[in-house]
Amino acid sequence: MKVHIIMGSKSDESVAEKAIKILEEFNVPYEVTVASAHRTPDYLKEVVENSDADIFIGIAGLSAALPGSIAAHTVKPVIGVPVSGKVNLDAILSIVQMPPGIPVGAVGLDRGDNAALLAIEILSISDENLRKKLLEYRENMKKKVIGG
Amino acid sequence: MKVHIIMGSKSDESVAEKAIKILEEFNVPYEVTVASAHRTPDYLKEVVENSDADIFIGIAGLSAALPGSIAAHTVKPVIGVPVSGKVNLDAILSIVQMPPGIPVGAVGLDRGDNAALLAIEILSISDENLRKKLLEYRENMKKKVIGG
Amino acid sequence: MKVHIIMGSKSDESVAEKAIKILEEFNVPYEVTVASAHRTPDYLKEVVENSDADIFIGIAGLSAALPGSIAAHTVKPVIGVPVSGKVNLDAILSIVQMPPGIPVGAVGLDRGDNAALLAIEILSISDENLRKKLLEYRENMKKKVIGG
Amino acid sequence: MKVHIIMGSKSDESVAEKAIKILEEFNVPYEVTVASAHRTPDYLKEVVENSDADIFIGIAGLSAALPGSIAAHTVKPVIGVPVSGKVNLDAILSIVQMPPGIPVGAVGLDRGDNAALLAIEILSISDENLRKKLLEYRENMKKKVIGG
Amino acid sequence: MKVHIIMGSKSDESVAEKAIKILEEFNVPYEVTVASAHRTPDYLKEVVENSDADIFIGIAGLSAALPGSIAAHTVKPVIGVPVSGKVNLDAILSIVQMPPGIPVGAVGLDRGDNAALLAIEILSISDENLRKKLLEYRENMKKKVIGG
Amino acid sequence: MKVHIIMGSKSDESVAEKAIKILEEFNVPYEVTVASAHRTPDYLKEVVENSDADIFIGIAGLSAALPGSIAAHTVKPVIGVPVSGKVNLDAILSIVQMPPGIPVGAVGLDRGDNAALLAIEILSISDENLRKKLLEYRENMKKKVIGG
Amino acid sequence: MKVHIIMGSKSDESVAEKAIKILEEFNVPYEVTVASAHRTPDYLKEVVENSDADIFIGIAGLSAALPGSIAAHTVKPVIGVPVSGKVNLDAILSIVQMPPGIPVGAVGLDRGDNAALLAIEILSISDENLRKKLLEYRENMKKKVIGG
Amino acid sequence: MKVHIIMGSKSDESVAEKAIKILEEFNVPYEVTVASAHRTPDYLKEVVENSDADIFIGIAGLSAALPGSIAAHTVKPVIGVPVSGKVNLDAILSIVQMPPGIPVGAVGLDRGDNAALLAIEILSISDENLRKKLLEYRENMKKKVIGG
Repeated sequence: MKVHIIMGSKSDESVAEKAIKILEEFNVPYEVTVASAHRTPDYLKEVVENSDADIFIGIAGLSAALPGSIAAHTVKPVIGVPVSGKVNLDAILSIVQMPPGIPVGAVGLDRGDNAALLAIEILSISDENLRKKLLEYRENMKKKVIGG
Repeated sequence: MKVHIIMGSKSDESVAEKAIKILEEFNVPYEVTVASAHRTPDYLKEVVENSDADIFIGIAGLSAALPGSIAAHTVKPVIGVPVSGKVNLDAILSIVQMPPGIPVGAVGLDRGDNAALLAIEILSISDENLRKKLLEYRENMKKKVIGG
Repeated sequence: MKVHIIMGSKSDESVAEKAIKILEEFNVPYEVTVASAHRTPDYLKEVVENSDADIFIGIAGLSAALPGSIAAHTVKPVIGVPVSGKVNLDAILSIVQMPPGIPVGAVGLDRGDNAALLAIEILSISDENLRKKLLEYRENMKKKVIGG
Repeated sequence: MKVHIIMGSKSDESVAEKAIKILEEFNVPYEVTVASAHRTPDYLKEVVENSDADIFIGIAGLSAALPGSIAAHTVKPVIGVPVSGKVNLDAILSIVQMPPGIPVGAVGLDRGDNAALLAIEILSISDENLRKKLLEYRENMKKKVIGG
Repeated sequence: MKVHIIMGSKSDESVAEKAIKILEEFNVPYEVTVASAHRTPDYLKEVVENSDADIFIGIAGLSAALPGSIAAHTVKPVIGVPVSGKVNLDAILSIVQMPPGIPVGAVGLDRGDNAALLAIEILSISDENLRKKLLEYRENMKKKVIGG
Repeated sequence: MKVHIIMGSKSDESVAEKAIKILEEFNVPYEVTVASAHRTPDYLKEVVENSDADIFIGIAGLSAALPGSIAAHTVKPVIGVPVSGKVNLDAILSIVQMPPGIPVGAVGLDRGDNAALLAIEILSISDENLRKKLLEYRENMKKKVIGG
Repeated sequence: MKVHIIMGSKSDESVAEKAIKILEEFNVPYEVTVASAHRTPDYLKEVVENSDADIFIGIAGLSAALPGSIAAHTVKPVIGVPVSGKVNLDAILSIVQMPPGIPVGAVGLDRGDNAALLAIEILSISDENLRKKLLEYRENMKKKVIGG
Repeated sequence: MKVHIIMGSKSDESVAEKAIKILEEFNVPYEVTVASAHRTPDYLKEVVENSDADIFIGIAGLSAALPGSIAAHTVKPVIGVPVSGKVNLDAILSIVQMPPGIPVGAVGLDRGDNAALLAIEILSISDENLRKKLLEYRENMKKKVIGG
């Protein structure tokens, strides 16, 4: 059981940190790689094809081709995280509007945390323990909201 | 192993059909329910909480609260499909821009097919047979593209 | 006679303050609750259904499902206030583009003040005294604009 | 008890019809006037100031100044309905983004029906009978959704 | 010969200053008034109808109804200046997308300077002296660009 | 006294017709030229510089450089009309967002009629007769709106 | 001397036809391949790396990763053509907003013709004959515009 | 072999610097001119027509007519760079959405670096040495990404 976080550039690190923080909180093994769909396409392919992870999280801004390029090289689930910049609709639409046949599940702008939570939800389908932790996490979240 | 398709309105049916077509092609059991986040919130909660599905697909247009509302009632993975209309950015942004803590994985506008494929990719994490079918599906897709 | 302000997150407080300031200026009783459509849907339902308020003001950013979720649990009027962020069109469109049957009246981005004024206008339909105060408030506003 | 529907142009009639249909279903008295904020500003002022209605519904497209202009001449609640066209964001943003002090409650693009329902919700604050009808209306809506 | 600058709010002053600076440079008489289409509609009408100016410049942000409201009360030419804010498309589209029959000439976001220059171009149709100054102004502008 | 209508392409003719119809109704002399800022820049310059018109109307779609290019070659007032297409915001923003120093007054999408009316308003500054006709035109417009 | 047109899907053919028509008119050799960045990434790489063309034209809609993916596999110039659909800004921004280091030159929505002309302009840098044809082409274009 | 960088205004200098830095790194001769499509159209024409460069890079913001105006005066390839501001979609769409017949290749917002790289790619079609440098540049870029 493992999640592979791939970011398109070192500059996307703060968004990746949000994902890492959640994965560590849930004790879910993960790996982090910097690999660009545009600058290192062959390396990206190699990273994706040789990964022993169950799920990929692709983090990228601008014309954010990374999540879609990961998805092009695997049939494992890929979660895409658009990174904010000067336009924002560019990264959001680039990740959401994938063509038929190659799915990516997009979370919100800079939402590394939600990408990790979605990955954990996916892993919890066959891991009762993880699901329990997710339910506790939700419970705590609720208490924080209600407790103010 | 089951996928639960929930659409916000009967009028979203053509998008749901694309998902159903894929699920049937992969012999993945599914259930289809019409339940609105806005018109039938209690029924939606009931449907989500009592579902024995592993994954939800929420299909909705306009201020597309449905996928987020499904996610609010479960820690199972939720895939959101924005349905096209007069504005389009409304449904896309409503589904993508979920707040921290409650993840939804958004696919493209009217992409019921990709929602189903993403669901199958998720289920294939623990189902080698399904993964094989996904790889074959991809292979066929490639042949179609290359063969023209 | 009461207005119930519900905000999706503590971070929306500055927008709620604008509403509170107006309600206090008009001596209109109010209640403030933090309740999230996504993180605490059951609590939100409970809050809405048990509220003795006449009008709800829902304040939320991003995929701002809160006003619509309040409206889903009541037939009392709901005013929605989109909160500004990195995209802005997300919160505006999520609140404005409600489906047929479940109305929300949206005011402008971060316009907690206008939400309160609209609530007071609604309450003044059956409260002559309140209407007088509204007319005075307008008169003062005019003087400020003209007096420069 | 009365609702005054004002549309900016004869061409907005189909959206007004949706409001009228709802108001008639609820036996709420209404009046319909064509008056343009831009072409007949004085007539609009006269219509608004002399109206014995409790609530206004302003329906307009393009640079949809009508709801805001109605609100400029009254402290009665004003509901704005953007009418669809070639741009759509023009009418939506013109109606939603009102400046501080002059509130308008915007409903969705072409949502004359929701404008009427919001008006009825407002009137039902002091009319138990109307509230009952609203609850029945919701109940029927739920049945339709669930019954499919 | 006079230009009347009307701004919707004191906060639009920095944009008005750009217009004033140009008008003074060209020795064109002007008048400045703060009058809001939404907060002081009757005062605005009075100001417009009693103005002895030849041209109006309306400066406003958000749902920028001001230029259109000026145009509603006069057949003199009206130039509209959208003021920047959190959304920007709101003010631009509100001013540009006027309905048939009531024209407004919109200049760019915060372009008080261009509004004044357009006004001077209009006045120079029947004022050879002013046209000469405009040509000199252009000449100087060219020199600055080319001289770097 | 003359208005020069320049359109970027034969395909913009229907928008030009709206302007022509108004100019003929007001007996304002006009000239129509097809000249493209991109395909015939020298011809455009020649047309603009040799025109004996008082005002230019530039009609163009897509990256609508035409009105700005006319303005670059004259200090006479230029009115720009964005022509609708697949994107619409392209032509609107290209015409509205002119840089400081070279003003264009933009009217709404496809609003050839308003461009002509604005031109007539400009000409009426020094033509009482034309102003009277404008006031009559408005009066008739009002009657049509009110008479329904 | 050769131009290689790659389209992401058979459905982009009408846009490719516009490019082909121009290339044939200029007698520029070309090759056409259907290869998807998402569905056939390895085949795309192979096609790009083995191409003897001097310039690539990538044609794609939605999250149009194709031109960027071509650019990722070559240092030959790549021209990208966004294909129109339900959103349009998706394909435009996906192609324009490339990250630093991997350039793509984007032409307008559905502008296969301009992609071909840009390719020919590039080839004409070292081909005087081609440049002459381009100048003739322009001359004819001018005549058509002016001749009306 | 030369690249001519033209910027619409001194204020676009930081974007031009990015292009210059790349061109110097590749030892490609270049020339820099400030010339505005709107403020100095004749000078721009002169600069373009008398340039001995092979490729033009046009850098401009707002209604960014510059690249298109360069293209209007030459059949040499023109690369357009939109400069960021308050709206951003204005410059992007103004440069991308060129009409048929006059191509411009647009790179991303503020991407002077990519404009230079695309120019170098174009020049490398007939310069093996330059292509080698490009391949080395890519190789170094890859190492930086992978080496982190």
